[in-house]
Amino acid sequence: MSGSAAEAQRLLAASTKVIGVGRNYVAHAKELGNPVPKEPVLFLKPTSSFLHAGVATAAIEIPEPLESLHHEVELAVVISRRGRDVPEASAMDFVGGYALALDMTARDLQYAAKSAGLPWTLAKGQDTFTPISAVVPKSAVTNPDDLELWLKVDDELRQKGSTGDMIFKIPFLISYISSVMTLMEGDVILTGTPDGVGPVRVGQKIKAGITDLIEVEFDVQRRNRSFSA
Amino acid sequence: MSGSAAEAQRLLAASTKVIGVGRNYVAHAKELGNPVPKEPVLFLKPTSSFLHAGVATAAIEIPEPLESLHHEVELAVVISRRGRDVPEASAMDFVGGYALALDMTARDLQYAAKSAGLPWTLAKGQDTFTPISAVVPKSAVTNPDDLELWLKVDDELRQKGSTGDMIFKIPFLISYISSVMTLMEGDVILTGTPDGVGPVRVGQKIKAGITDLIEVEFDVQRRNRSFSA
Ligand SMILES: [Mg+2]
Ligand SMILES: [Mg+2]
Ligand SMILES: [Mg+2]
Repeated sequence: MSGSAAEAQRLLAASTKVIGVGRNYVAHAKELGNPVPKEPVLFLKPTSSFLHAGVATAAIEIPEPLESLHHEVELAVVISRRGRDVPEASAMDFVGGYALALDMTARDLQYAAKSAGLPWTLAKGQDTFTPISAVVPKSAVTNPDDLELWLKVDDELRQKGSTGDMIFKIPFLISYISSVMTLMEGDVILTGTPDGVGPVRVGQKIKAGITDLIEVEFDVQRRNRSFSA
Repeated sequence: MSGSAAEAQRLLAASTKVIGVGRNYVAHAKELGNPVPKEPVLFLKPTSSFLHAGVATAAIEIPEPLESLHHEVELAVVISRRGRDVPEASAMDFVGGYALALDMTARDLQYAAKSAGLPWTLAKGQDTFTPISAVVPKSAVTNPDDLELWLKVDDELRQKGSTGDMIFKIPFLISYISSVMTLMEGDVILTGTPDGVGPVRVGQKIKAGITDLIEVEFDVQRRNRSFSA
């Protein structure tokens, strides 16, 4: 089923959506003062927000006039084939691989959107807001519920957590999401972030990884918007 | 630039995102008690929510336990090629065609999301929530700012409006959106709905169109979710 690294990587090129799961770790929900959800909180990021690791110029861009973005280190699940109403029992058959992703968030824009009852699109969906590692085939991961995620800003450890602490596990997420929207080959589920989220600024460097499996590095730079109304 | 109907239709098959614009007609913003926005309100729908007109089985699905969905008839702009930071002056060069789309909305879920400060994903993004016509090549539309949109439920006229009443016009929308997220070939912009939105229920039929250009028809049926937590 899971195939080679090249096959796993090709999945990502076919991706048509990124489904983010919010508040999927109790400690992170609490650090932002949010209730622990009874159902997964879902949001969408466009695939145009991907920033692929390993490209020499790979840099997260902070659009002016924002001073910072928040880092959220997350396990990304890459879907291998089309699925609607997938039962939990067979959900893992729809996983093609895993990646390490950062769900970059303009927290100020998100707070403003939340209080105005508006979508999180600008807070979550801008170009470079989804840095992502190469895809690791499913066969390389013995237990996705026992992975250590970590993130450093300029060598300071900011986040460290275990996917074992996710409130909603991968099979449940696949089943739930596929009951509201058909999952397509290459779609990516961002499974939520452990606590320790915080700001990164222009000129800083992010290193993040899954212990013994993946390590990535991204610069952070200024994004000058040409748009003027 | 604009090419044949077949080329225009192929664009839609390549689509990786649908960008919805909220509150882009003054009368509709007012009917829902919303302020008229200073910047476009953007939200994302997944391409898995497309429901293509003309397929014999094309039916809008109302997921249980919802009683109804709201219809929003909209002009869809189909993007012909990748663009970032597109200036207004050249924005129309990025249009490949137009379609008539319905931005189906679970209004109850949207109100609940708004008051909880949560994303509109479930309210806007479920399967069949974006019924869409065949794509008409750009060359077939002399003036996209002077199109009459209409929608009937069981032969009762519910919506009728002109794209001339859009607050933010197409070149502005393309420029604005491409300054926050790169537009890709096949991406679809839903340009907002005129007033007259309202509920449709299981068993009803929607007809909608752009006068002298497009006419579509969709049944409305029950969607039984298999999911149980
Ligand atoms: Mg997140
Ligand atoms: Mg998408
Ligand atoms: Mg709409």
